[in-house]
Amino acid sequence: GGGSSRYASTNMRLKLPITCFILEIIIIILFGVLVQYDEGTDAKLWHDRNHSSHSDYDNDFYYRYPSFQDVHVMIFIGFGFLMTFLQRYGFSSVGFNFLIAAFALQWATLMQGFFHGMHGGKIHIGVESMINADFCTGSVLISFGAVLGKTSPVQLLLMAIFEVTLFAVNEFIVLSVLGAKDAGGSMTIHTFGAYFGLIVARVLYRPNLDKSKHRNSSVYHSDLFAMIGTLYLWMFWPSFNSAITAHGDDQHRTAMNTYYSLAACTLSSYAMSALTAHDGKLDMVHIQNAALAGGVAAGTAGEMMLTPFGSMIVGFVAGIISVLGFKYLSPVLESKLKIQDTCGVHNLHGMPGILGAIVGAIVAALATADVYGEGLTDVFPDVASGEISASDQGVRQIISLAVTLGIALLGGLIVGFILKLPIFGAPPDTICFEDSIYWEVRRSGSFILKAVISESIQFM
Amino acid sequence: GGGSSRYASTNMRLKLPITCFILEIIIIILFGVLVQYDEGTDAKLWHDRNHSSHSDYDNDFYYRYPSFQDVHVMIFIGFGFLMTFLQRYGFSSVGFNFLIAAFALQWATLMQGFFHGMHGGKIHIGVESMINADFCTGSVLISFGAVLGKTSPVQLLLMAIFEVTLFAVNEFIVLSVLGAKDAGGSMTIHTFGAYFGLIVARVLYRPNLDKSKHRNSSVYHSDLFAMIGTLYLWMFWPSFNSAITAHGDDQHRTAMNTYYSLAACTLSSYAMSALTAHDGKLDMVHIQNAALAGGVAAGTAGEMMLTPFGSMIVGFVAGIISVLGFKYLSPVLESKLKIQDTCGVHNLHGMPGILGAIVGAIVAALATADVYGEGLTDVFPDVASGEISASDQGVRQIISLAVTLGIALLGGLIVGFILKLPIFGAPPDTICFEDSIYWEVRRSGSFILKAVISESIQFM
Amino acid sequence: GGGSSRYASTNMRLKLPITCFILEIIIIILFGVLVQYDEGTDAKLWHDRNHSSHSDYDNDFYYRYPSFQDVHVMIFIGFGFLMTFLQRYGFSSVGFNFLIAAFALQWATLMQGFFHGMHGGKIHIGVESMINADFCTGSVLISFGAVLGKTSPVQLLLMAIFEVTLFAVNEFIVLSVLGAKDAGGSMTIHTFGAYFGLIVARVLYRPNLDKSKHRNSSVYHSDLFAMIGTLYLWMFWPSFNSAITAHGDDQHRTAMNTYYSLAACTLSSYAMSALTAHDGKLDMVHIQNAALAGGVAAGTAGEMMLTPFGSMIVGFVAGIISVLGFKYLSPVLESKLKIQDTCGVHNLHGMPGILGAIVGAIVAALATADVYGEGLTDVFPDVASGEISASDQGVRQIISLAVTLGIALLGGLIVGFILKLPIFGAPPDTICFEDSIYWEVRRSGSFILKAVISESIQFM
Repeated sequence: GGGSSRYASTNMRLKLPITCFILEIIIIILFGVLVQYDEGTDAKLWHDRNHSSHSDYDNDFYYRYPSFQDVHVMIFIGFGFLMTFLQRYGFSSVGFNFLIAAFALQWATLMQGFFHGMHGGKIHIGVESMINADFCTGSVLISFGAVLGKTSPVQLLLMAIFEVTLFAVNEFIVLSVLGAKDAGGSMTIHTFGAYFGLIVARVLYRPNLDKSKHRNSSVYHSDLFAMIGTLYLWMFWPSFNSAITAHGDDQHRTAMNTYYSLAACTLSSYAMSALTAHDGKLDMVHIQNAALAGGVAAGTAGEMMLTPFGSMIVGFVAGIISVLGFKYLSPVLESKLKIQDTCGVHNLHGMPGILGAIVGAIVAALATADVYGEGLTDVFPDVASGEISASDQGVRQIISLAVTLGIALLGGLIVGFILKLPIFGAPPDTICFEDSIYWEVRRSGSFILKAVISESIQFM
Repeated sequence: GGGSSRYASTNMRLKLPITCFILEIIIIILFGVLVQYDEGTDAKLWHDRNHSSHSDYDNDFYYRYPSFQDVHVMIFIGFGFLMTFLQRYGFSSVGFNFLIAAFALQWATLMQGFFHGMHGGKIHIGVESMINADFCTGSVLISFGAVLGKTSPVQLLLMAIFEVTLFAVNEFIVLSVLGAKDAGGSMTIHTFGAYFGLIVARVLYRPNLDKSKHRNSSVYHSDLFAMIGTLYLWMFWPSFNSAITAHGDDQHRTAMNTYYSLAACTLSSYAMSALTAHDGKLDMVHIQNAALAGGVAAGTAGEMMLTPFGSMIVGFVAGIISVLGFKYLSPVLESKLKIQDTCGVHNLHGMPGILGAIVGAIVAALATADVYGEGLTDVFPDVASGEISASDQGVRQIISLAVTLGIALLGGLIVGFILKLPIFGAPPDTICFEDSIYWEVRRSGSFILKAVISESIQFM
Repeated sequence: GGGSSRYASTNMRLKLPITCFILEIIIIILFGVLVQYDEGTDAKLWHDRNHSSHSDYDNDFYYRYPSFQDVHVMIFIGFGFLMTFLQRYGFSSVGFNFLIAAFALQWATLMQGFFHGMHGGKIHIGVESMINADFCTGSVLISFGAVLGKTSPVQLLLMAIFEVTLFAVNEFIVLSVLGAKDAGGSMTIHTFGAYFGLIVARVLYRPNLDKSKHRNSSVYHSDLFAMIGTLYLWMFWPSFNSAITAHGDDQHRTAMNTYYSLAACTLSSYAMSALTAHDGKLDMVHIQNAALAGGVAAGTAGEMMLTPFGSMIVGFVAGIISVLGFKYLSPVLESKLKIQDTCGVHNLHGMPGILGAIVGAIVAALATADVYGEGLTDVFPDVASGEISASDQGVRQIISLAVTLGIALLGGLIVGFILKLPIFGAPPDTICFEDSIYWEVRRSGSFILKAVISESIQFM
């Protein structure tokens, strides 16, 4: 059919090994040439520095590594299992998530290092760069959610190369050039990842995807696996948003704001899920996704003096927006704009990300020395130094949102067309959302049925 | 049948959204009026305090947050997945656990704040109040276990409102008025939650529950999901019991005592499970639950100088009691006392909680300055100051157990009758333990069978 | 058949309780006689010491416990779920893992205490001994992987008794007598556990195991459960390798080296998995196991100045070796050497462990004061003090590998013959890899089929 002309062989025997080996060898060479231990990880540098009053207990490892591990779980278990909701795509959801995350974190170390980690021609790395690499990886995984089930692992690795690079560019512009604040990445991670992925999905539009429709849904146990992903994202989001904020009250406050934002979001998500169903039955899709929107929406303002009260309002609104998006906007995006957003990343990361950016701009514009005291230096250093006013900071935040959207949309457009080249082994429309294209699936349905029947006889 | 007259419509389209929205809006307003950042989370207060010799690394975030995250995982993954053992109730187990926990932690912040967190008319919050809120939530989830499968989400939210409130009252009486010690909550969390839930289950007794009997059991994969819950509870229980003890040796010792108590309990649980089965086969119910009793039983004495030796004895006994309870007592509770305890919380939290309270009283009564040295001030401040004797402290502990039991039983009785009002959408006896009452279950059995058969043909 | 003469009853009703009770009671008595709180957990000792300049925040709990919890998750969830890939052996995989780990960590506390924790006739314990006990347990669980599905829980407990003891002897020789470094246990944990288990599997060779062949494989959901184990091992391996290194740069560097080794290993594992399949399809066995080899291989050199560049090369090679082992070596081991290695521990722990030991020896031999600065004292104290040269240290490492292999092989041989005694309830060849031998499996296949059909009718 149409598939045969448009799609090359999905056989990965050479394509995937060649891609992986070339990428890994390039990365290893670049690490050899460019990357060095930073002061906290280098035996000599740490002990030299240590001579003065420092103790081994001051190493940043102890103040960042627990957060890093929580973020790490979100990336590999959280994102990976969240996407296992599809009935026949669990291996690919968890497995491709694993592959592209393992690649992206290495590539991100280099790209982020180029843009804001160079010291005398070398990239210095430690636990903070590890967190940042995981953050950048998160953005790629969000885009993965938009194209889930419709792309080959080679396409995904290619997408990761470009997206990580553009992420680093955008992050540099937003944080370093424009001086915006975005500790939990409402803009740089969620908005960027979502709109990048949505445009890629648009370019890769499949008019005959309904031929795979019966596989583009969940079964009972796949929804339970997905809840593992949801809950780890939900529980550790406070660690995510606070992982790279300033030490002391900043990390503490960010974690707490996120905790309350998520709690409020969960209640509004359940309420909206029941309200928008004709029979009042809760929809697992909403619970798995919308209940997380409060974490996304607290990504920018979480480190600010948002207060638990403000955090809850933000989370409450995010949950409502997200369920409404799943219910009413996603079908329109698909039918009118031809954006087939498998996981609904627009509802979990796109709109809540924009909400978070706007909230961040407002809270920044309202910052006063009276409220922040000397803590203002940590949160808004340029406002504290008198260089700019608080409302200027708010403007910076909004400009940053616009820049992020622009780079995401333009980048996604170009990358989408690259991925469209019919040489990367994308599956035909008729067998999307199907593990057995790329995985040895040992026990197919027939076997299970046979086993069930034979055991019925054996054990009765 | 009888169900139709006694039970109103289970349709949640209006009931659940109205309940959620009203509760969340009330909470948000109360947070706006009453709740403030504490010294560790407020930008101004922290930096003011910081002027002296303090550094950002002294923030309590670094000494409590890892414990908090472990507790958080126990609440959402641990309790949530432990209850997925039912074959057709996984969505509700994880999903209602998620909903009522997200509500309860907010409400607990307010209730606990009223009773022991007020500063100048305001409730001050930080990581310690977050841990306490999660603890209180744990108590509600224990009660949830007793009524699992037989209650609507609206009933559960109502139960949470009242139980959190009474929990805070009891906690205030036990810890602040009576001056008892109960860091890991053998009394305040486990005994309270278990007996509260058991009485609620008694009041909600369903004479025709055997009509849902075929769903009130596990299938193969649901037992594996439940083991995820069990293991996270088991692994992180040392963090739970030590999360709010004094810093230094106290946290360290509590974690280690719990670690050994649980290890010993696991061996006695396996032994008893095989011993009490006529064919020597291990029972997943025992492994999933009884192996955790050692954590419950170390909840009061864990912070004391119980020694690993003592901890192991406590855990060893707790495992034996718990399996015996599942095997011989639960059937009696159901047939004679009409208490239908779905998860057997009496065996995991009730009896081991009482055991833990008694052990705590004994160990407290035996405390000497010789053993505790200056550490006595952290564990038993009133004994250290000479205000009371060690045996007085033991008496305090026992009185606290009695008070806890009294408030739990009386509170559960009243709340049970409130929940019995036939307007909250409880399921009829014939369709308890069934997700599809409250959840959109996309793929019912018929679909799976069709899929299996059609794939058999397709893939063979 | 042949099974009836060779295998005694698999009924565990008396065997398992007697074994568990005797072991636990012996352990409790030995703890009562021998074990004491160390300085960080004892109320009196800590506060006495504390008088000087120390604060409660200096307690080692805060600098080791987060690592301990990550290791703990690896032991119980990581190893436990990694082995659930078998279609009918999930209860035993998770459940026996749980049982023998809970036993082994107690026994390891005593055995390791005898060899390197005695203070005035007493074993002093705290968070570091807890980590070491979990490490030793990991070694037993590796051996468990080699005999998975073919042993009774009583056999496994017996194996644990001997293996823990020999582990402690070997660890003492390698680390204390020979003065080798092996923080993440490439030698002491992985090489030891793998070759010990392989020899046990050899002695327990079952010529008719193909009669259970249809159960010695995965089904769709069992592979997803196994991925939970894989990912937790992968994510927390940086914590594992760094858990007991020196504080400061050492822990920080070890974690980072392991992070990059694993990332590179993941890419080479995916590449090799596709390359070695005739149709280019990825094999879950490779992804679940080979992608972890980078953590094993960084277990010795991870704390050294291996650099991220070096770590990636090590991980890259480890992934290749591991997949090749699964594909080409394991079948030969089974057919020629009669080693039936259920989980392929030779490929995940055996060969990568030896690789890690050799890399460690090379990196140690290349150590210079120029590179390590004053940090040399932490990593190679005898080299820093001038007692030996760096190349001497390399020799120490290689001798340690040889000693480890020797003790593992000899120990495994003897223990294998002990386990072969036909009184421990091993399953006959025809019903290996089957939960229902040792577990009450409530819903057998017949029930599921009936349930599916009856629900088809009910819900349609």
